[in-house]
Amino acid sequence: MDSSPGMLFDLDGTLIDSVYMHVLSWHRALAREGEILSVWRIHRRIGMSGGLLLNALAREIGREFSSEEIERIQTNHEAEYAKMIDEVRPLPGANELLARLHSVGAPFAIATSGRAAKAMSGIRKLNVPQGVPIITRDDVKRAKPDPDLFLAAAERLHLAPENCLVVGDSVWDILASRRARALGIGLLSGGYGREELDQAGAFRVYNDPADLLDHLDEVGIRDK
Amino acid sequence: MDSSPGMLFDLDGTLIDSVYMHVLSWHRALAREGEILSVWRIHRRIGMSGGLLLNALAREIGREFSSEEIERIQTNHEAEYAKMIDEVRPLPGANELLARLHSVGAPFAIATSGRAAKAMSGIRKLNVPQGVPIITRDDVKRAKPDPDLFLAAAERLHLAPENCLVVGDSVWDILASRRARALGIGLLSGGYGREELDQAGAFRVYNDPADLLDHLDEVGIRDK
Repeated sequence: MDSSPGMLFDLDGTLIDSVYMHVLSWHRALAREGEILSVWRIHRRIGMSGGLLLNALAREIGREFSSEEIERIQTNHEAEYAKMIDEVRPLPGANELLARLHSVGAPFAIATSGRAAKAMSGIRKLNVPQGVPIITRDDVKRAKPDPDLFLAAAERLHLAPENCLVVGDSVWDILASRRARALGIGLLSGGYGREELDQAGAFRVYNDPADLLDHLDEVGIRDK
Repeated sequence: MDSSPGMLFDLDGTLIDSVYMHVLSWHRALAREGEILSVWRIHRRIGMSGGLLLNALAREIGREFSSEEIERIQTNHEAEYAKMIDEVRPLPGANELLARLHSVGAPFAIATSGRAAKAMSGIRKLNVPQGVPIITRDDVKRAKPDPDLFLAAAERLHLAPENCLVVGDSVWDILASRRARALGIGLLSGGYGREELDQAGAFRVYNDPADLLDHLDEVGIRDK
């Protein structure tokens, strides 16, 4: 195979430093419903779709949320997160990594479990070159850890998923990458431990986009 | 040996759910100085003394903080944290665990890297029985990962550190426990991964205080 592999990037915790703001936003939205969940348990569910996250947390609390409650918690989460959006910055090396891939002609896309509006508020933090496909929750039936987001992203790049590398910070990204038959690259920048990503099946683990940029040769991206 | 081992508890992330609020408070205090640090890197330093944390972060940024800057960042961190203190709750099972130890006559103390004023704002979230020793940063020369806090706590219980179990959520607690010659018990409730605590040398790892309470027999605490 002569061509460069495609890279399919998660957004939150992978390109922008937003995971901890999301965690606290969910904590606040749940507290408004009178549900106090340990913050670390929310952290470990970030990266799933909001609906799956709430199902998983409901199981831990030991009760179900009605569809009305789920809708309200999601809306309140988005409102709380919007208050913190000014604190969200690109992760170190994120823009430089995208610029390098663009300049060497390596195809890439962004695939996030967030809905389009929230995703766009994150994308605007970055310098994403024109024409890069952006797949959101609204484009697929099932979000991570299902493979749909990454499968759709590969299709938009006209690549087989087997010729793609998924880059993400959560075990849900890595599990979804394996279900998509792509190799998964873990980044520590979402706050998971290295071993958690390793054990989920990551092919390689780096600190953050800057560290991945320094080691692109390890994952098969070459200068033109 | 007939008597119960002593238990030396860390506070933040171990008994109260405050780690993520501390993380964002440090992030905000550093941003006020124009220093944008990745949030996960701050998370992995929580539990050290504030001074060591800032030294470690300065090394990652690649510059030193003056003692004036350190003072200002610490003050701003405390101010930011104070704004979130109402969101800080006891971790699940924390009060029940302390009540059980009290009722079976197992000696215990709380030892935190925070300064006295901040520590007390956390202690007030809990029902700590009268007479339980509380050791803070102000009582010792060096905070975690040095063993001083736990050594002082054991002394206050009139126990050899070798007869004590340190309970903490961070690798700094576990490293300090080993330097104090005590066994370290890790809790996931501060957001570290299980393997990080294992690899730091934890004797056992539980989810949170409620999970430890369910397994007290594994660590040598018996009903009277």
